[in-house]
Amino acid sequence: MQGVFISFEGLDGSGKTTQVQQVAEVLRGQGYEVLTTREPGGTVLAEKVRELVLDPLLPLNNMTQVLLYLAARSEHVEKVISPALAAGKIVLCDRFSDSTLVYQGLTRGLQLEALENLKQLNAYACRGLVPDLTLVLDGDPHKLLTRRVSRGVSDRYEIQGLEFQKQLRRGFLTLAQAEPERIRVLNAEGSADEVEQQILAVLQQFLKKA
Amino acid sequence: MQGVFISFEGLDGSGKTTQVQQVAEVLRGQGYEVLTTREPGGTVLAEKVRELVLDPLLPLNNMTQVLLYLAARSEHVEKVISPALAAGKIVLCDRFSDSTLVYQGLTRGLQLEALENLKQLNAYACRGLVPDLTLVLDGDPHKLLTRRVSRGVSDRYEIQGLEFQKQLRRGFLTLAQAEPERIRVLNAEGSADEVEQQILAVLQQFLKKA
Repeated sequence: MQGVFISFEGLDGSGKTTQVQQVAEVLRGQGYEVLTTREPGGTVLAEKVRELVLDPLLPLNNMTQVLLYLAARSEHVEKVISPALAAGKIVLCDRFSDSTLVYQGLTRGLQLEALENLKQLNAYACRGLVPDLTLVLDGDPHKLLTRRVSRGVSDRYEIQGLEFQKQLRRGFLTLAQAEPERIRVLNAEGSADEVEQQILAVLQQFLKKA
Repeated sequence: MQGVFISFEGLDGSGKTTQVQQVAEVLRGQGYEVLTTREPGGTVLAEKVRELVLDPLLPLNNMTQVLLYLAARSEHVEKVISPALAAGKIVLCDRFSDSTLVYQGLTRGLQLEALENLKQLNAYACRGLVPDLTLVLDGDPHKLLTRRVSRGVSDRYEIQGLEFQKQLRRGFLTLAQAEPERIRVLNAEGSADEVEQQILAVLQQFLKKA
């Protein structure tokens, strides 16, 4: 049996990383084989790409960043995600293609035609692999950012501030609107437990049909 | 005045690297401003990509290699080649897009449709920049390889042997046949001086018209 590929997307501070781990535990308790992974990551190359892209002494243009991320994704799909799916596992991935479309696309003011190019490029790198289901953990950027800053976490994207987070949110919602079947938007403003319950409700329903 | 972009392609051992330098000297003597560069190279990122792609402990799939080379090319075009062309210089580049199409495309048995994808991907990374003129230094692979081995030079591509060099040659000739206006095939079996004279004859004619 072919596995099921589920990606988690959303703003920083939306709790994706925590949810991926918690949901994996629940599913394992129900007898599913589950692999959790994240992007950019999952392979030796991906970690090296992460170093390159985040190196402040090596400012890269947006297209170069896209190509480096896609190089990492190509390895990630080939060496980690596809083998797990072929083995019938549920793969939960913290960020995937939609993050590229939002971070390197929609928030850069890419016009629709250029976004279509980016999608094609991405499909090429992934050999056409698309998540079976994508959960966008959504919420008011100000609330999510406040929650995250109160935990003392920050990275280069958050430093770009609230206005950028609002653009990100608009980006994810735009994608969700275009593909309502695949992309489900969940409210992530509540407690971790509340969010987890929402995710599990959607997942259980999805897995019953899968 | 916009400059002129000339790429040199061909098998290993065909003398590209030497010719680029010699021809640059002659053109400078005629009063032209000339920039010489090479791929993969020309930027800090490109050198890092070269390390990644050549690392024997990090075997990468073909698509990942393509994406990494294109990431390097994107920076090379933006930061080195385009500014030189905008300043009216002649840019002589040791390998460019056609090498990608041959090394990561035609010699990998890519079908025509996939090659078209690779071309589009490459055009995206280069922002559509295509050489004004491409010189393929061509010759019998056995003769060129013998000459090169006698100089004690070898790299991972040559280790793949004569059969691979024959595939490379067929690849470059296929591209030249498809674009006879842009891509000129020159016989590189003669002495360095003979090859240089051929190149200069083509270049002088081209620059007169440019």
